[in-house]
Amino acid sequence: MLLSGVFPPLTTPFASDGSISLPDLEHNILQYNGTDLAGYVVLGSTGESVLLTKAEMEGIFVTAKEAAAREKKLIAGTGAESTAETIERTKRAAELGYDAALVKTPHYYKPAYKPDVLIAHYRRVADASPIPLLLYSVPQFTGIALEPPEIAALAEHPNIIGIKDSSGSVQRLAETITTVPEAFQVLVGSASTVYPCLTIGACGAILALACALPEKCVTLFELFRQGHHEKARQLQSVLVRASKLIVSECGIAGVKYVMDQRGYRGGIPRLPLPPLSNEQKTRISDFLAHLEPAMARA
Amino acid sequence: MLLSGVFPPLTTPFASDGSISLPDLEHNILQYNGTDLAGYVVLGSTGESVLLTKAEMEGIFVTAKEAAAREKKLIAGTGAESTAETIERTKRAAELGYDAALVKTPHYYKPAYKPDVLIAHYRRVADASPIPLLLYSVPQFTGIALEPPEIAALAEHPNIIGIKDSSGSVQRLAETITTVPEAFQVLVGSASTVYPCLTIGACGAILALACALPEKCVTLFELFRQGHHEKARQLQSVLVRASKLIVSECGIAGVKYVMDQRGYRGGIPRLPLPPLSNEQKTRISDFLAHLEPAMARA
Amino acid sequence: MLLSGVFPPLTTPFASDGSISLPDLEHNILQYNGTDLAGYVVLGSTGESVLLTKAEMEGIFVTAKEAAAREKKLIAGTGAESTAETIERTKRAAELGYDAALVKTPHYYKPAYKPDVLIAHYRRVADASPIPLLLYSVPQFTGIALEPPEIAALAEHPNIIGIKDSSGSVQRLAETITTVPEAFQVLVGSASTVYPCLTIGACGAILALACALPEKCVTLFELFRQGHHEKARQLQSVLVRASKLIVSECGIAGVKYVMDQRGYRGGIPRLPLPPLSNEQKTRISDFLAHLEPAMARA
Amino acid sequence: MLLSGVFPPLTTPFASDGSISLPDLEHNILQYNGTDLAGYVVLGSTGESVLLTKAEMEGIFVTAKEAAAREKKLIAGTGAESTAETIERTKRAAELGYDAALVKTPHYYKPAYKPDVLIAHYRRVADASPIPLLLYSVPQFTGIALEPPEIAALAEHPNIIGIKDSSGSVQRLAETITTVPEAFQVLVGSASTVYPCLTIGACGAILALACALPEKCVTLFELFRQGHHEKARQLQSVLVRASKLIVSECGIAGVKYVMDQRGYRGGIPRLPLPPLSNEQKTRISDFLAHLEPAMARA
Repeated sequence: MLLSGVFPPLTTPFASDGSISLPDLEHNILQYNGTDLAGYVVLGSTGESVLLTKAEMEGIFVTAKEAAAREKKLIAGTGAESTAETIERTKRAAELGYDAALVKTPHYYKPAYKPDVLIAHYRRVADASPIPLLLYSVPQFTGIALEPPEIAALAEHPNIIGIKDSSGSVQRLAETITTVPEAFQVLVGSASTVYPCLTIGACGAILALACALPEKCVTLFELFRQGHHEKARQLQSVLVRASKLIVSECGIAGVKYVMDQRGYRGGIPRLPLPPLSNEQKTRISDFLAHLEPAMARA
Repeated sequence: MLLSGVFPPLTTPFASDGSISLPDLEHNILQYNGTDLAGYVVLGSTGESVLLTKAEMEGIFVTAKEAAAREKKLIAGTGAESTAETIERTKRAAELGYDAALVKTPHYYKPAYKPDVLIAHYRRVADASPIPLLLYSVPQFTGIALEPPEIAALAEHPNIIGIKDSSGSVQRLAETITTVPEAFQVLVGSASTVYPCLTIGACGAILALACALPEKCVTLFELFRQGHHEKARQLQSVLVRASKLIVSECGIAGVKYVMDQRGYRGGIPRLPLPPLSNEQKTRISDFLAHLEPAMARA
Repeated sequence: MLLSGVFPPLTTPFASDGSISLPDLEHNILQYNGTDLAGYVVLGSTGESVLLTKAEMEGIFVTAKEAAAREKKLIAGTGAESTAETIERTKRAAELGYDAALVKTPHYYKPAYKPDVLIAHYRRVADASPIPLLLYSVPQFTGIALEPPEIAALAEHPNIIGIKDSSGSVQRLAETITTVPEAFQVLVGSASTVYPCLTIGACGAILALACALPEKCVTLFELFRQGHHEKARQLQSVLVRASKLIVSECGIAGVKYVMDQRGYRGGIPRLPLPPLSNEQKTRISDFLAHLEPAMARA
Repeated sequence: MLLSGVFPPLTTPFASDGSISLPDLEHNILQYNGTDLAGYVVLGSTGESVLLTKAEMEGIFVTAKEAAAREKKLIAGTGAESTAETIERTKRAAELGYDAALVKTPHYYKPAYKPDVLIAHYRRVADASPIPLLLYSVPQFTGIALEPPEIAALAEHPNIIGIKDSSGSVQRLAETITTVPEAFQVLVGSASTVYPCLTIGACGAILALACALPEKCVTLFELFRQGHHEKARQLQSVLVRASKLIVSECGIAGVKYVMDQRGYRGGIPRLPLPPLSNEQKTRISDFLAHLEPAMARA
């Protein structure tokens, strides 16, 4: 199970009445099938998974599996607060044919979630899971970062094959890579540092920005893979600005807005996530208008 | 709806097979009915609400309502990540006869939850709720603190009657109290600062420690109310140590362990929350052995 | 050496050419001599000590000692980054007749200043000092907080008699007080929590706000001491607002501006500290205009 | 004034009586003169500048200037808390023939040092300085980070030619590089991310690790410059471990200990900085013993 390449964490489209729209999800996936994305993460943070009901999650898992092209790898976001529910979701994803599970750290009872508690949690899930696990560290949402020592301890488990590190810390990622066995796969979760992370040994990337600008993200990966470092640097520079504006400042609503401009079905996020302001929409539109010329220069 | 006095956020007892034990919950409430606790918070953070299924929550809401003595006020913890689910839970609690709802801040998408987004969320819930709301700020778990300006804005809503502030910041609580209308009720959520918070105008307290040591917490409140400041200071000093050891260091497992020693049904928390180590149990037992003499001296 | 009561950390007046103005300092102290302030802190954080040259510090130490009334206790701020310089400054203050030294934590090399390193530093200074020491924890400036375990360890040193805790955490202060011997004196360093801190056992306060509003701060202390809890609560409520506006939002420039309004010589701070904006001046003036009526009502 | 390449921030050697040892400093510089280091930073954070007296600083500035080879660029650390003293130190460095000044952010009064205050401070220093300035952001020591908007604003000043960013955040560095004019020179200050930072456009590095392992750091820079990306990646991986152990965990004492092993005069730091424990010495010695074989493999 090699996870090289770029994966978007699919957004969840909503219908005008606020319910999820599985046809729109299918539409998006069919379009992504035509790109060189390596696969899809279903029900990650960008998928608004914490805002969905259990029944909605099931519908999304089923629809995404059916719509995804055969060659695309499918990673299911299955992390819940309780160990038991995480295992239940992971088993269901395995039943449905997902290739791997992405398990975020439990986080509500932060003061209790010391490294040994997190290690025990992940080992229980990995023991019970029929499919391999990816650890998922996303401290900007959870307030908890997996650090190299606990990652290294968990990398010894035969059913834990890698990590998505969305902390944005290249230093932590570098320390992780020097600490884990070579086969352990480190994926970066922030578009603004993809290229530098690839240069130090990350094998792939799971990027919210790839929902909106999949070709650009794939091109960056390919430029690196083929050793075109100067071009990679220039494209990364553009994506730094794109990521800052679209993902960091505007969040899921920003990603969905760009999708709407590009033939995907984005829509607006579920409350309490706010829709974009007009000012934000204008800034994004202006940015996109200058994107192709900027790319052409780069 | 006056929320003066001390409220424990009830713990959730689990049977040996890991399922919730409603008879144990009933047992605990019947015992608490004999104390001077002002009422109960059902499904708060100490109730491990984020580790429970929807069906388990329903069972707990129903059982607690039935077991609680008529004169005890009942506050339902109904905060979920999505606005819609928060409203749904709040309506269900109202149907069941709960007096008020305690709504924690949504928190997963922290960078998006700016003050105006939180205000909009709370207003939507308050508009839709048949029962009055208490805001709930608990940054040690959520990473988000409600600050005096947004609390003051929300205090203008006729269906928002107060706040539980568990941040532990007496300064923030003091600023809140000087900012909101006098009728807005501020409850403190940390046992180590109850007495100083009462001296500056808090009207009550919701304390995990009150699950384990209800009489002590009630006594502290009464000492303050009757103007016995020196005795209140001495008892607060004992409770500072109790809170630090039992709640801050040992967490929900610590609270439950003391409950087991005192005739309640505590048990162990649900995974990934870890049970106490033997060393922690010994430290708590030693502390409890010295508690009565310390109280007598105080 | 009892440090009960209220102490202002004296501001440093500057002449129009940017040099320090010792006559203005003398003027201020002579006025303060007529109040019930317990004494003065010379060259604390509010005295802009880190912006002064060695020669300027010497002038201030000498002038303050000469101007201070006999019965006022004199505390010298002597903490520097290096242990040797801290000892040198402390010895000089002792020579000049200061009663005690206030020693802030060294802080530049934060990652290295683990508790045992701080303990060793303070022990060396206390061993070498002819006068008793007060520890000084001010994390909003230094990024380092002294915690109850290290405070308790240092409280055993015969030449360390207390602490000024400016962290604003009443919980930490409460834990400190329950941990140290009764003779160890805990002074609070934030005006917004003076009264609640006194109720749990603080013996005094060192308050930037007391430079600007000495009588109000002294009155609060006296109300508490005489058991007028309701009046103390009301005055504290006013001082919460005063402290937030004047000290927290406007800083040293705010304190000096109020001094200028009240017959003291405040002036502006030294660069890079900025002077007040006109908007800030207006807000402070408006606040002061309403202060006496608010006090009268309270 | 091009600042490409690797610069060590020179350590300050102390004699056995605790005074500074200028002959040892000269010895070190003469050795460094034989390497391909691009120049030296004199009195940076690693030089323990905040622990030195004014007279000691003068001696070091003079000695370093005299000992440095003609072709080595000389950067003087001149940042002080006050604007006036920063200007004074910068002018003195210019008089002595330093090529540029490295000015760290003032930081004690953190809450007051908003972006516009920092911008005004740097502009005043830049206006007054006879030599070009490098901004210096080192939040792990100061608690203040310079962010891309203020860096971009300052980059417009003709006498501000670059920045040393020691925050360790590759994302911030990437955003800075995409925001400033091309001529503005960005130097990275953390050895664990040198190579990834070079790939995105940093022009050089100021590294504490380069005091201890100058050749390795220079080799990494050269590998990158010549496009040997795979070898650069492997050497970076070794330096990640070296930097973590020697610099992050052991601090200045760690850097000096390695210098002692390598023919330089390291010695121990000044108090309150602690010397290494025996356990730390053993870990470093073990690491160094495996370093050459690891490099050979890489």
